[in-house]
Amino acid sequence: MSPRGEFAWIDRLVELLGEGARGIGDDVAAVTDGGDGSLAWTVDTLVEGVHFRFDWLEPEAVGHRALAASLSDLAAATAEPLGALVTAAGPAAVLEARLEGVYRGLGELARASGCPIVGGDLSRADGPLHLTVTALGRCAGGMPPGRSGARPDDEVWVTGRLGAPAAAVALLRAAGDDPARLAAARADPATARLARPEPRVAEARWLVERADLHATIDLSDGLSGDAAHVADRSRARIAIVPNLLPLHPAAVDAAARAGGSALDWALHGGEEFELLVCTAAGALAPHAAAFAERFGIPLTRIGSVETGSGVVRRDDGRETPLEVAAWDHFRVAPPDPHR
Amino acid sequence: MSPRGEFAWIDRLVELLGEGARGIGDDVAAVTDGGDGSLAWTVDTLVEGVHFRFDWLEPEAVGHRALAASLSDLAAATAEPLGALVTAAGPAAVLEARLEGVYRGLGELARASGCPIVGGDLSRADGPLHLTVTALGRCAGGMPPGRSGARPDDEVWVTGRLGAPAAAVALLRAAGDDPARLAAARADPATARLARPEPRVAEARWLVERADLHATIDLSDGLSGDAAHVADRSRARIAIVPNLLPLHPAAVDAAARAGGSALDWALHGGEEFELLVCTAAGALAPHAAAFAERFGIPLTRIGSVETGSGVVRRDDGRETPLEVAAWDHFRVAPPDPHR
Repeated sequence: MSPRGEFAWIDRLVELLGEGARGIGDDVAAVTDGGDGSLAWTVDTLVEGVHFRFDWLEPEAVGHRALAASLSDLAAATAEPLGALVTAAGPAAVLEARLEGVYRGLGELARASGCPIVGGDLSRADGPLHLTVTALGRCAGGMPPGRSGARPDDEVWVTGRLGAPAAAVALLRAAGDDPARLAAARADPATARLARPEPRVAEARWLVERADLHATIDLSDGLSGDAAHVADRSRARIAIVPNLLPLHPAAVDAAARAGGSALDWALHGGEEFELLVCTAAGALAPHAAAFAERFGIPLTRIGSVETGSGVVRRDDGRETPLEVAAWDHFRVAPPDPHR
Repeated sequence: MSPRGEFAWIDRLVELLGEGARGIGDDVAAVTDGGDGSLAWTVDTLVEGVHFRFDWLEPEAVGHRALAASLSDLAAATAEPLGALVTAAGPAAVLEARLEGVYRGLGELARASGCPIVGGDLSRADGPLHLTVTALGRCAGGMPPGRSGARPDDEVWVTGRLGAPAAAVALLRAAGDDPARLAAARADPATARLARPEPRVAEARWLVERADLHATIDLSDGLSGDAAHVADRSRARIAIVPNLLPLHPAAVDAAARAGGSALDWALHGGEEFELLVCTAAGALAPHAAAFAERFGIPLTRIGSVETGSGVVRRDDGRETPLEVAAWDHFRVAPPDPHR
């Protein structure tokens, strides 16, 4: 029995659930609350051994990342967080050993981001630990922009610097079971970025107040994959200029020390939790300096939207397709035929 | 290492997450949406082998029950459903074999209850199938009544008829691996109630429009356990009169045929998904006949709220404590030290 791919599954499940379920596979659902506002709502399940490994990250980081992933989905919807619910299910021994650390990490990010954890559930169950976070946010200005609004002649911008999470995964993977190398990889600055991603909630709200954002997405699948989502939904082509990418210094350092390509990590690495936004030409440039001043990270133009389809890269005038790289090279998770 | 009990866990997690997380272990969280309304929000994870078994229930019933549990939490908050998100995580072979049926059951109840499934997530993972449903509802009249508002001299009322789900579990458990007995148990009318519980969403909204509900809870842990939650949160005593309990005919039949006590099933059986409400004396009696006419199920007074603490039963003038019975006698799930 050959497992179905993501899109075949989603089509079949939407058939069973009704058209409203088209949001399965998207990162965030939009719900009207009956008033003049719109709610952004997201849920993610992270499974031990699939989405995180305790030999790579401390329990606090696992908790931080579980909430960060959901907050990043809210950021992509330019939503203000209202709260989150957390469920955990796993064997009693794993809960005893790890759960306090996981919830400490959840609690720290909840306080830092103003997104209170208002409830949840706890179950004993055999098998790997499952952590599910669902987060709810409010979009004051109505429906969030989403992935489908990019238009030809838009500019493509990205927050922060890219490549560190994939660099960390490369270091951790290369360390194998060697305790000394594993300890060094865990202490690497790239791993600090992997362990404590910073969801761009405040940044998104700042941007949406200053420019008409045609399309937004958070970089969770990797720039190549997420740009492809926007291109696909917007029925447009996206051109990325690798020379413009803001490489993270920890990725550049890791590549110099341990081999690997910081540019490839930046192009394809998942779980950056930075924002990609598409806006009309000239709309964001006047705000880039104030953004960097306010948030301490750059806001960088990395490409453009054109008529056509797919994602291409432009290197010194030469244009080639930007393929979505195999997941297992760049992510914590092994390749998943359903995603 | 002895596993912690539910309350020790919740106290520790609230310490780590902040006071807002006090809702962990409650069935529903209340979130203000920034406007004049209030949102009721719930999440439940169901794990194969812990909360459901495919040899007892068809995949469609598993999906129905997963959404029904969340809708019942919204009903207890007298909320109108806005939508639900569903995540599933399990091995590829289990997803292939079961997921379509599970989602068919989810979709049927979503359509019947006017609660669209608006998104979710799908992961491949080793171990048992995990299904997580999070549902969101709107409380037009502000914050839901919850468990803490019962007052001395209130009356205790319950919707529907009790005992069938626990009767079904008793029949299924007694059948063991015997194919003929298992087939008979699966075809029993009591099992139809276990497989397709009817969350009392419309009933709750009808009641809240006609009476001031001081406290509400849905019967998911069993009458004895859920009455104890209300007594505990309301700092009051609840007295249940067993002679007043509306026994489900399928439970009475099962007890007559296969042994067991329909009254014990009604007092202690979980996953009824009926509503228990506490109101001022005389507030509901004038509406009971119209309720039965409108919904085809009874609305029955079963006891009263008094000063004191705990839950007692009154049999022909004799008063004894109503203990919360051991879970494994009355539920699909084995006893869980965390709950």
